[in-house]
Amino acid sequence: MKLALIRDSEIYNKKLLGLMLRDRIRKSLEKSGFVVKFFNDNLSLDEAEAYLIINEPVLFLERDLQFEGEKILVSDDFTVGYLFERDFKDLFVRDPQSAIEKYVAMNNIKKLEVRALKLSEDNLKLAEKLLLSSLIKSHDGIVSRLLNRRISLRISKILAERNVTPNQISFFSFFLSILGSALFLLDTYLATLIAGIIIQLHSIIDGCDGEIARLKFMESKYGAWLDGVLDRYADFITVFCITYSLAQANSIYWIVGFFAAFASFMIAYTGDKFVATYGRAYSDSSRLSIPITRDVRLFIIFLGAIFNCLFFSLILIALLGNAESLRRILSLRNVTPSIGLPPGTVRGG
Amino acid sequence: MKLALIRDSEIYNKKLLGLMLRDRIRKSLEKSGFVVKFFNDNLSLDEAEAYLIINEPVLFLERDLQFEGEKILVSDDFTVGYLFERDFKDLFVRDPQSAIEKYVAMNNIKKLEVRALKLSEDNLKLAEKLLLSSLIKSHDGIVSRLLNRRISLRISKILAERNVTPNQISFFSFFLSILGSALFLLDTYLATLIAGIIIQLHSIIDGCDGEIARLKFMESKYGAWLDGVLDRYADFITVFCITYSLAQANSIYWIVGFFAAFASFMIAYTGDKFVATYGRAYSDSSRLSIPITRDVRLFIIFLGAIFNCLFFSLILIALLGNAESLRRILSLRNVTPSIGLPPGTVRGG
Repeated sequence: MKLALIRDSEIYNKKLLGLMLRDRIRKSLEKSGFVVKFFNDNLSLDEAEAYLIINEPVLFLERDLQFEGEKILVSDDFTVGYLFERDFKDLFVRDPQSAIEKYVAMNNIKKLEVRALKLSEDNLKLAEKLLLSSLIKSHDGIVSRLLNRRISLRISKILAERNVTPNQISFFSFFLSILGSALFLLDTYLATLIAGIIIQLHSIIDGCDGEIARLKFMESKYGAWLDGVLDRYADFITVFCITYSLAQANSIYWIVGFFAAFASFMIAYTGDKFVATYGRAYSDSSRLSIPITRDVRLFIIFLGAIFNCLFFSLILIALLGNAESLRRILSLRNVTPSIGLPPGTVRGG
Repeated sequence: MKLALIRDSEIYNKKLLGLMLRDRIRKSLEKSGFVVKFFNDNLSLDEAEAYLIINEPVLFLERDLQFEGEKILVSDDFTVGYLFERDFKDLFVRDPQSAIEKYVAMNNIKKLEVRALKLSEDNLKLAEKLLLSSLIKSHDGIVSRLLNRRISLRISKILAERNVTPNQISFFSFFLSILGSALFLLDTYLATLIAGIIIQLHSIIDGCDGEIARLKFMESKYGAWLDGVLDRYADFITVFCITYSLAQANSIYWIVGFFAAFASFMIAYTGDKFVATYGRAYSDSSRLSIPITRDVRLFIIFLGAIFNCLFFSLILIALLGNAESLRRILSLRNVTPSIGLPPGTVRGG
């Protein structure tokens, strides 16, 4: 058992973005395998294989706390806590502070930087801001980064206070996509314009399910799976409706639409199949990689709707998406060493 | 270090399916983390944390040997070997057999069943047969099981003796798919018939890349990734060409084709996304699951080509594939507990 001992504080009773600060630190540490115990003045120490002692009120801002060995956890400007091994118990009488000092003096313990905030009554607004921006994913597409996240985080801030589950958001976002797509079937510019706006709104809200899941410790495997699967349905239905609408005038658009739908799919598939086989997130820092992620594709459709040139959006998605998919086939070939497969990986199917 | 000590034997010099039997046992054990050493009469023991001693000439028939702790490895009718911990070294003077007997007498060691064959000059044909059938995947589709594997294993048996890499087979198989698909564009029954036969041939040969990879220890992450990605290209191109051909007569087939392409994609995507998020192979034993895996889809196209009713193949794939995809969304929702995500898993994208 790994034991986390947290000195209790009044401030832990405050709610931040839908969750008490006490629950935030508890769930953060439980996620990384600790049994969490709050203490006040007196503390009796259970037997454990590792002890994490946190004396100051803290909000962790990292998604995955990976603690190992013996460490002094530090943030920019304060000591977050101490991670000791089992022989810390021998030094302990009643007061953690003196035991900590003795233990640190006896052992050569390394420092580990963690992203955390020392909580006080004055900086709860800052805490909220930092917590929200910790939800941004490092590999967000360019439209996500510059536009969607700025809005979706504001929406998530409101949703966090309410009893909304990530999967409910996924389905609502999916519904928006269907609604927008259906409007593309109507043959007026006004309908197309509204459709485009709804699709872009869908693209923004599509970030909220993940944000709420991370923010309120509601992540689930099914949720992550469903999120990807519904995105594929949404992509398909949107491209299909645009294609159907354009093809009434000229059936060549069926071909363009086919390739645009395929391109949309392959960008997602090559990434997800990478996770399935390599067992880690797909990321590509190549200068040659074409930024045609989902946020960008939907933005291209949004622009196409505004300027009433959706045929151009389809062509662009078909060309850029297929080019990027081919590029990935070639670039992965060179980069990757040939080593064993992780369990569950299957060739074929 | 875990040390595998294998008593050498003349028979290890024999080649089986393109690889010396000595290399087969060596690579099998190296894959599960052993340093492999062959010995004859005298044996000096290096320091190691575990010893695996194999006295008889053996061919392992399991894909992943998972050995832990202390075990006597047994097959149906013989003792495959002994797995001991480091204190085995203390008993060892020069002869493994007497040390083994002493060690087994002193410790209470459990038996572990492994799939293996005791090699002799007489049973090399049997060894070949068993090794080939060990390549079959447990979750093969129904057409694979009843038809494709029976033929692809024969082809792999021939290919194993040659210097062909799995990725070369993947590309050749892909080329067959393109060739067959292109023939669908010609407007004669003969072309359609030949196209259908080539597509079914592609479906059969598509199993060989994985078989050769497993057979010759040439598995790679890139290979597994590429195999999936090329299958998506092949699926798309085949459905596109059939659709294009049918739509010349009636443009309603563009719609059917769109949905058939989407269905093909979603069967693969829901499975691969499952591996990406859940970290294990997708398998579904539900009575309600619809067997519309790739082998079945291509067989439906093959039959449609023979009976000149490809429109029916498209409709069938569109209906069954989309029904199965929806079923997976509903069934996974109920089955799965909500627990943390494995590293590298990402919501969205």
